[in-house]
Amino acid sequence: MKPGLLIVVSGPAGVGKGSIMKRVRELSSEVILSVSATTRKPRPGEVDGVNYFFKTRDEFEEMIAQNSLIEWVEYCGNYYGTPKDFVCSELEKGHNVILEIDVEGSLNIRELFPDAVLCFILPPTYAELEKRLRERKTEDETTIARRLSRAREEFEYISRYDYIVLNDTIEEASQEFLCIVQAEKMRTTRNQELINSFRNI
Amino acid sequence: MKPGLLIVVSGPAGVGKGSIMKRVRELSSEVILSVSATTRKPRPGEVDGVNYFFKTRDEFEEMIAQNSLIEWVEYCGNYYGTPKDFVCSELEKGHNVILEIDVEGSLNIRELFPDAVLCFILPPTYAELEKRLRERKTEDETTIARRLSRAREEFEYISRYDYIVLNDTIEEASQEFLCIVQAEKMRTTRNQELINSFRNI
Repeated sequence: MKPGLLIVVSGPAGVGKGSIMKRVRELSSEVILSVSATTRKPRPGEVDGVNYFFKTRDEFEEMIAQNSLIEWVEYCGNYYGTPKDFVCSELEKGHNVILEIDVEGSLNIRELFPDAVLCFILPPTYAELEKRLRERKTEDETTIARRLSRAREEFEYISRYDYIVLNDTIEEASQEFLCIVQAEKMRTTRNQELINSFRNI
Repeated sequence: MKPGLLIVVSGPAGVGKGSIMKRVRELSSEVILSVSATTRKPRPGEVDGVNYFFKTRDEFEEMIAQNSLIEWVEYCGNYYGTPKDFVCSELEKGHNVILEIDVEGSLNIRELFPDAVLCFILPPTYAELEKRLRERKTEDETTIARRLSRAREEFEYISRYDYIVLNDTIEEASQEFLCIVQAEKMRTTRNQELINSFRNI
């Protein structure tokens, strides 16, 4: 069984990661989204075990202590982390797993999974990011300012990523993202068994 | 102006490179096919300046002497080569240029153009390749045997390529090929200007 791809998706708050990932899953059954654990409060409509595993700080700290997270970060006062069991068992089944995580989390993934594919989602312009963040209406002005300042910090990490997806429209960005997944599966380095089958004729 | 991608396509005779490239150009105006020079005789329907620049041996050797070819090889008694002017001027215009060339030619390209994307087209199985070669009915048995023996030599080069496209159907292989082109254009290493525009906010 050929293992699945581990695909990391990052990008500033408000860039549209959630909308792209939703559309990607509608377009393709070949990718699944890892469910993160977090201590942040659910937004309206978010479901425990689907959008996130919502945890108390005590519960989250117990997961850290038990080493049952691939990576975790504390960001804007909340913990976010990736449960290890889920990701590893899905990859072994040959499923392509998407992790939507923070820039620091991505670098941890790169160390643990050198074959992971790292994608950074960018808005068409910085002004557009600010606009989208305000239109979301889920954060107050202080939080928006903090997220924008954080976005500028995150841009410093872009060159550590493999691909940049420009989110002009959700539809185009989703299709471009799926192209990356398809192309990566065709990489020579991921098809050694196939190559061997032709070299041993 | 962002330079275009140089995309190299190789694969054994009979694998369907020509059909895939024809379909790729129907599906997308974003790629153009480089026209090679050759001393081999035109097949029925092939047009000078479209499929190949058909040259005499004397003419071809003059091009070699004048250093006006990016790469050239002698294969099954004929010369094949890539005119330098055409490729370089198209890349500068931002066009993505496909070179359909031999395994040795590909390695020369890699040295001259380190950013080139190398794709190897494989048949679903070796038996299928043999079948396709016979069905083409353009070569006699001796030539077919020579081409199959050559195919086995070419398989030794696969791991030098970036991607493997499995030609199960022309339609799927063409779409997969275009995905590779699209994904490569999103590579972080090819978008330094974009990254800088976000880092200098």
